[in-house]
Amino acid sequence: MVQGTHVPVEFKLHFGLGNMSIAHEIEETGETLNAAESRTGRAVSSGMEAILNVPIKILDHGFVRVVDYLGNDSAIVQAARVSYGAGTKKAREDEGLIRYLMRHRHTTPFEMCEAKFHVKLPMFVARQWIRHRTANVNEYSARYSILDREFYIPEREHLAAQSALNAQGREEPLPTDEANRVLGILQTDSAVAYDHYEQMLSQDGQRGLARELARMNLPSNIYTQWYWKTDLHNLLRFISLRADSHAQYEIRAYAEAIGQIVKDWVPMAWRAFEEYDLGGAHLSKSQLQCVRRMLQGENVSLESAGMSRREWQELQSMISGA
Amino acid sequence: MVQGTHVPVEFKLHFGLGNMSIAHEIEETGETLNAAESRTGRAVSSGMEAILNVPIKILDHGFVRVVDYLGNDSAIVQAARVSYGAGTKKAREDEGLIRYLMRHRHTTPFEMCEAKFHVKLPMFVARQWIRHRTANVNEYSARYSILDREFYIPEREHLAAQSALNAQGREEPLPTDEANRVLGILQTDSAVAYDHYEQMLSQDGQRGLARELARMNLPSNIYTQWYWKTDLHNLLRFISLRADSHAQYEIRAYAEAIGQIVKDWVPMAWRAFEEYDLGGAHLSKSQLQCVRRMLQGENVSLESAGMSRREWQELQSMISGA
Amino acid sequence: MVQGTHVPVEFKLHFGLGNMSIAHEIEETGETLNAAESRTGRAVSSGMEAILNVPIKILDHGFVRVVDYLGNDSAIVQAARVSYGAGTKKAREDEGLIRYLMRHRHTTPFEMCEAKFHVKLPMFVARQWIRHRTANVNEYSARYSILDREFYIPEREHLAAQSALNAQGREEPLPTDEANRVLGILQTDSAVAYDHYEQMLSQDGQRGLARELARMNLPSNIYTQWYWKTDLHNLLRFISLRADSHAQYEIRAYAEAIGQIVKDWVPMAWRAFEEYDLGGAHLSKSQLQCVRRMLQGENVSLESAGMSRREWQELQSMISGA
Amino acid sequence: MVQGTHVPVEFKLHFGLGNMSIAHEIEETGETLNAAESRTGRAVSSGMEAILNVPIKILDHGFVRVVDYLGNDSAIVQAARVSYGAGTKKAREDEGLIRYLMRHRHTTPFEMCEAKFHVKLPMFVARQWIRHRTANVNEYSARYSILDREFYIPEREHLAAQSALNAQGREEPLPTDEANRVLGILQTDSAVAYDHYEQMLSQDGQRGLARELARMNLPSNIYTQWYWKTDLHNLLRFISLRADSHAQYEIRAYAEAIGQIVKDWVPMAWRAFEEYDLGGAHLSKSQLQCVRRMLQGENVSLESAGMSRREWQELQSMISGA
Repeated sequence: MVQGTHVPVEFKLHFGLGNMSIAHEIEETGETLNAAESRTGRAVSSGMEAILNVPIKILDHGFVRVVDYLGNDSAIVQAARVSYGAGTKKAREDEGLIRYLMRHRHTTPFEMCEAKFHVKLPMFVARQWIRHRTANVNEYSARYSILDREFYIPEREHLAAQSALNAQGREEPLPTDEANRVLGILQTDSAVAYDHYEQMLSQDGQRGLARELARMNLPSNIYTQWYWKTDLHNLLRFISLRADSHAQYEIRAYAEAIGQIVKDWVPMAWRAFEEYDLGGAHLSKSQLQCVRRMLQGENVSLESAGMSRREWQELQSMISGA
Repeated sequence: MVQGTHVPVEFKLHFGLGNMSIAHEIEETGETLNAAESRTGRAVSSGMEAILNVPIKILDHGFVRVVDYLGNDSAIVQAARVSYGAGTKKAREDEGLIRYLMRHRHTTPFEMCEAKFHVKLPMFVARQWIRHRTANVNEYSARYSILDREFYIPEREHLAAQSALNAQGREEPLPTDEANRVLGILQTDSAVAYDHYEQMLSQDGQRGLARELARMNLPSNIYTQWYWKTDLHNLLRFISLRADSHAQYEIRAYAEAIGQIVKDWVPMAWRAFEEYDLGGAHLSKSQLQCVRRMLQGENVSLESAGMSRREWQELQSMISGA
Repeated sequence: MVQGTHVPVEFKLHFGLGNMSIAHEIEETGETLNAAESRTGRAVSSGMEAILNVPIKILDHGFVRVVDYLGNDSAIVQAARVSYGAGTKKAREDEGLIRYLMRHRHTTPFEMCEAKFHVKLPMFVARQWIRHRTANVNEYSARYSILDREFYIPEREHLAAQSALNAQGREEPLPTDEANRVLGILQTDSAVAYDHYEQMLSQDGQRGLARELARMNLPSNIYTQWYWKTDLHNLLRFISLRADSHAQYEIRAYAEAIGQIVKDWVPMAWRAFEEYDLGGAHLSKSQLQCVRRMLQGENVSLESAGMSRREWQELQSMISGA
Repeated sequence: MVQGTHVPVEFKLHFGLGNMSIAHEIEETGETLNAAESRTGRAVSSGMEAILNVPIKILDHGFVRVVDYLGNDSAIVQAARVSYGAGTKKAREDEGLIRYLMRHRHTTPFEMCEAKFHVKLPMFVARQWIRHRTANVNEYSARYSILDREFYIPEREHLAAQSALNAQGREEPLPTDEANRVLGILQTDSAVAYDHYEQMLSQDGQRGLARELARMNLPSNIYTQWYWKTDLHNLLRFISLRADSHAQYEIRAYAEAIGQIVKDWVPMAWRAFEEYDLGGAHLSKSQLQCVRRMLQGENVSLESAGMSRREWQELQSMISGA
């Protein structure tokens, strides 16, 4: 269960969302931070109701909060039973059916659940995130409005060195002195860029540059915000790809937080996802043949395995559980 | 407001949904026909709550009912204000903003609402409907389950003659004797096909043909069912295309019923849609130039208009309101 | 290489496509069955050029033919190098890069290839196929035109019994006498339905029913046709799901033929797909743990494996290669 | 980092494409700048062949070039005739059919054409562009590779003031002295940010920060590159929205250049698009009623028109052609 209970308090102190503060939205839309005040005939998820509208802090200024949702574990089952009807209903209880659907790539019943999030995130994270196309998005527009002075400055332990082996990889954190130089650059350049942004926008003694132009001076560690809405199938795919160890740490932090939300929302679907996706493994044709030989007692080596060194290493760590 | 109040009663008598009867679903999923029994912190639409789960009858055996929804008019406004922020907020109240969004093709805020329907419809209607790709669908599967003996037999006034002018067109109803012949054919062939379907499936004294094969003998006026879920933007586009006079009557009947549901769900968005889409008109470049000349008092004829006879006729009926 | 060489001859005799005969299209669009007559600066696939426009026969009256394509293996590599640049290029040749992309779920470079097919298929197959939403489709319209008298009648060896274990399953073929009854029903009902279709349409001594209505009497083993266009990533996903042993035989026949086309089109991508998708295997978390214990010499039984009987059986056949 | 050093001279004079020079791609993929050297059986567009691979310069360092395409005007006609068959074929020649399809929102035949572009564009333009979801994209990755020192610095005439009336609007160019201050800021901040980017990446005497982190310091006027592939229907929609006067100038410049490419590629479809979309006008229900009253000789005023001042003004300019 996401521990967001103490958040609302310091949240009011902390989150200055400029001209779209959450406080403002509440007054705009009648949204509230304390849930369960209307009556509805819709399917309800008690786990989701408990965390509705409660921001989960990510990175230094970011957050994710669930704004709305549609469906629950029963909605998945209901949709599956429409499709597979009597055939699958015999003596198979809900969780078993959900596991069956996940295992056999029957993805459409999971599309019958939908969630809508309000996310505050650095622009470079937003650029990775937006590549997931099957979603609805409304982003805070720097054409229309003025961005807040909020920039992502990594914690020292996340200021990682470039990997020598792997182009997109990170290695261990930078040594202190180098980390200090980097932090100095990021902080100074962010501050200067924002000062200049304000100067260019200013209509004090000058015309003032158009917002849609002034924003081009801002670095991509600036925070933006959006509403992001997608169905459960695509949400799980997002988590599978972005909570993965190959994903950049900064987006992984968001994907993992959303995973915790999904766990509260549709606990049966989440357990099936952990069993068949997150916790599972994919074997290539060569790796599968190699495992068969090993299980028949053969002592297989890299040379006799007939695969690349990298795939051999992947297989080793897969079967050793390391 | 959709008059569904008397429906539940005769509905229990009438809708035998075979192994996916609504009664069954209720027991499966805790759904109920009388709304508003849970508490929620989500945005609520009182108009939608009032019709939740109440089937609206369409054609002879079909129906549409709202099973679930996400969002309301305020959710559209909220999403728009995230995108356009302070810029658009000044002194423009909600309905004005929704009209502005619709007029200027700012479609993404409408995507922040979602609705899920349970629909029972003839298979040939389903084949048109499914062409709307941006939607989630779970259809009753004739691979897994046995279809019910329910076929669409048109009312006499909908047994229309083929248009001579227009390949996809219908003209006035067939004369009585011809209509009788057609009804006889449709009723007999449907009954025979279903009898044979049951005979092929039967395991009484024989093996019984696989369901996935036996179903191929059934004509496309048989009823199928599905859950269909989409966002408001795509739903409005569906209505715009399928409630149009060029659409086949049978799908139009569903699109119009859904339009009434949308009207109850998001009344502001619906009014904007009627103003800018359903009730509006599109002028081609030539038609626009023609209207300009007419407004300057010129007497424009087909010959001087510089457009095809068909476009000229379209323009005439557009400006005459006929 | 798809053996289509003898096809054009008997094809001219056989494929009467009514008012959209291929012969007609040729005259319409300048398409030809003998390839390579224009000059182009585009990327070319020699394997695909060799089979362009040559129909591959499927089932009794169906076919698939490639009408057009965009890209080749080099286009995948080119797109990958734009995205991953120096990082992935070092000393990794094209095929290695394609294998790397497939293994690590970098799907977007595969989207840079596109293929367009002309397919003739039974309507019930079309209804499964159309569920793949990320594709462009133009289907022969029975609202506008008159369908041909062509119905899918299965070969005896495909007239399978309903599985007792598995709702969507097929078992061995029906015994001869039962197969004869089924074939009799399918042939007779198809013929009668089409006769009545023509009678309802006829304008000889009567008005003639609208085409959009008359078609509802036709069973779903009637053949339809469409142009279907999609990108390589989605095409491989189609093959992965529809060439699978769980798919219905009739759509599998099309998916396998398309697989042979892909093999000619992008041989490197196809080999990677066989290695990492078709020939590979997915282990659940429990199955992976089980394999680890077995590799450490433990004698694991169903009881100690901690998974369902079905999953245990799946694991057994996976590791036995049966 | 991609070595573009062996770039042919004539090409260096033409376009400086930094470290993913076309020359490099040629060597990678066998692409060439002089078209028509392979033979193909596919549909060909002579207009498109003539401009294949030739970059069109946009803004100060950007470009668009067609890398590949599928289909031509005949492919649209062919797809339409599959769908509408005999019904629409009677005596309607190709261009008439294409106009008919465009006028009646029969969009799917236009999806049967596809084009693939290589685009170099400022990051803030890329962020608007990517919102068009129905497309395939491979972007140059700053996680894997190092971005070039190329930034968009607007021409003086495009350094526009913020509109007072309209949040997202631009007004006339800034006065010289203010423009000078702005140009100074953009040039200096870009240069400093890039110097710091290189310093953080440098492995000279330090570990060197991971590329995926260092890039966050770069402002969004830096240039990125991608391959972008979409179908003609979605491409026309992109042009309709982004070549519109409400779109930001910088993306409009790309949309207009792509429009010229489409004109060469599918001239019939382009003429229909100009007639029914670009050159046409949409009237709301109120505006249509107003035009009817005017055409009947009534003298309608803002007061009697029953619409907002803004809609009234839109109508005035529409009918005056101003």
